[in-house]
Amino acid sequence: MTKLKNDTLLRALLKQPTEYTPVWMMRQAGRYLPEYNKTRARAGDFLSLCKNPDFATEVTMQPLERYSLDAAILFSDILTIPDAMGLGLYFAEGEGPKFERPLREEKEIRSLTAPDPALHLKYVMDAVSQIRKTLDNQVPLIGFSGSPFTLACYMIEGRGGTDFRQIKTMLYKRPDLLRHILDITAQSVTNYLNAQIESGAQAVMIFDTWGGVLSHSAYQEFSLRYMKQILTGLKREHDGERIPSVVFTKGGGLWLESIAESGCDALGLDWTINIAEARNRVGHKVALQGNLDPAILFSTPEVITTEVEKILKDYGSGSGHVFNLGHGISQFTPPESALTLINAVHSLSKKYHS
Amino acid sequence: MTKLKNDTLLRALLKQPTEYTPVWMMRQAGRYLPEYNKTRARAGDFLSLCKNPDFATEVTMQPLERYSLDAAILFSDILTIPDAMGLGLYFAEGEGPKFERPLREEKEIRSLTAPDPALHLKYVMDAVSQIRKTLDNQVPLIGFSGSPFTLACYMIEGRGGTDFRQIKTMLYKRPDLLRHILDITAQSVTNYLNAQIESGAQAVMIFDTWGGVLSHSAYQEFSLRYMKQILTGLKREHDGERIPSVVFTKGGGLWLESIAESGCDALGLDWTINIAEARNRVGHKVALQGNLDPAILFSTPEVITTEVEKILKDYGSGSGHVFNLGHGISQFTPPESALTLINAVHSLSKKYHS
Repeated sequence: MTKLKNDTLLRALLKQPTEYTPVWMMRQAGRYLPEYNKTRARAGDFLSLCKNPDFATEVTMQPLERYSLDAAILFSDILTIPDAMGLGLYFAEGEGPKFERPLREEKEIRSLTAPDPALHLKYVMDAVSQIRKTLDNQVPLIGFSGSPFTLACYMIEGRGGTDFRQIKTMLYKRPDLLRHILDITAQSVTNYLNAQIESGAQAVMIFDTWGGVLSHSAYQEFSLRYMKQILTGLKREHDGERIPSVVFTKGGGLWLESIAESGCDALGLDWTINIAEARNRVGHKVALQGNLDPAILFSTPEVITTEVEKILKDYGSGSGHVFNLGHGISQFTPPESALTLINAVHSLSKKYHS
Repeated sequence: MTKLKNDTLLRALLKQPTEYTPVWMMRQAGRYLPEYNKTRARAGDFLSLCKNPDFATEVTMQPLERYSLDAAILFSDILTIPDAMGLGLYFAEGEGPKFERPLREEKEIRSLTAPDPALHLKYVMDAVSQIRKTLDNQVPLIGFSGSPFTLACYMIEGRGGTDFRQIKTMLYKRPDLLRHILDITAQSVTNYLNAQIESGAQAVMIFDTWGGVLSHSAYQEFSLRYMKQILTGLKREHDGERIPSVVFTKGGGLWLESIAESGCDALGLDWTINIAEARNRVGHKVALQGNLDPAILFSTPEVITTEVEKILKDYGSGSGHVFNLGHGISQFTPPESALTLINAVHSLSKKYHS
């Protein structure tokens, strides 16, 4: 049995009372931090950084040394699963992740198999264990994965930032093939997150970065459905502790009610929705995580503080709110802005938790 | 006084009874049509095509010769206004539009002035008049402009498809400067659309392509507010005919109620919202235009027909629906798919208008 020194995040995700609103930032270990860039340079490249548990531990801890964050999040890439499936992940300089062998042919799709996390993703589990040791129960460690639909986007398109033509063509022309990919991927994500939990992850988050490009009905059938499958298969307890789960569909504000029914404990919100409206719609069922526009961190301490206050006030009194950005922190963010944000959340939120 | 042979679109936009659901497609004159590509090759490049009224008329008419569309839309670019402001629009091969002199310095911003449409945008007005003559009252002609916020994105970023870092930094750090740009641009758009109406446009549409990247409150203050300003200044009648207006914010599904209050006659919908939900929320106030995912046109005639039927059924009985895609038609669309779509809308919609 572990005894966390600061379990505010876990309590907020389970809608239990807390003394203040906990805060962490998506992509909090990243390129906006000079110390991260130094470690990355030592590692050689991004993938070597992810695949070496010493480096992954080092960069996971960096933002915690600077800021009084309420959680650590495993440093890894969302594409570890398709990489372990043998699609050949690589990073072209300045171009983002790509796959050498994107999935296009039926034969390749039919021969896709779920990787064994203990074998093909051992480096991730080693990183989780090592980070937990290093954290020494200071704050909880969040594990994560991409959603099946989001992973399938990269696997089929071969890269991110596209017009989603390949995957949508498959969705409307050969839904059977896409469902097969999503089934295998959902099984892979379930195994992967459960292995992270067994290795020490104390909460898990599913990043559905691209679900928002779907139509309302295709979202239900091709993204949410497979996230539900994962949530059904997830270990909800480990070592006697509840493991809260968060689902974040970027651009999913229209679909909050159905996401809240998926079996997750909390919803991630991007910055396009007013958190007061989100709480009205689904706050009786789930906790909410978000939702400051990361671009606000390009402005002044006064504006950051005002915008933090607005979100806290919009959420209102009581538990069930984890403060976060509405998307990953930009590499161009001044590190002092993150400090302003975190301190503002901690000091201004107390009055909502009396 | 004109007497349109087919005024179904105008009636639907004003929620008056029609015999069937009218249909047109955003970017219906475009690269998916071989005849368009031939004209463009003759014109030399995209800008020359826009700036020559003969060519603009020719490509505007092309989809009407192929399909029984219920409207023509002026062939032009959304960036004609900033081009007329002197920012130096150019198209780098395969890279989309760019500006030679993006707005960054306060001095440049303060010296921005609204172009005179009769002078600086005469080529657009000439195209509108010539298209109207060529149309010979067959179907109505839609005029259009980008929204002030969307134009400002290009003007400040210098190009599309960015992370919106420059404009959002200005929004949160120097809102006074951004408001100045938006004020001048809103005045320019009002003048521009009114000149199009005087030249013969029978309906107008404001394309807010990028408003959806804003937070809920920034959207109200920095995008919707300036569209309202335009709508207030728009000529609502010309030659004794009502000129309906459409506002389309891509990714604006969360904000339909406030857009419906803006003074427009119809809302454009992207494909992420269920049109039944949209009608429930705002159908008592405005007509709705949309909202098939353009990617559905990559599939088979059977799937296209089924998906068209779903949207017609979701909208349900009665007037106030203009069928459209939820975004511009892709250059990779087979022209036969557009034919399937248009014929399906016409034949399947009759039963909802009895």
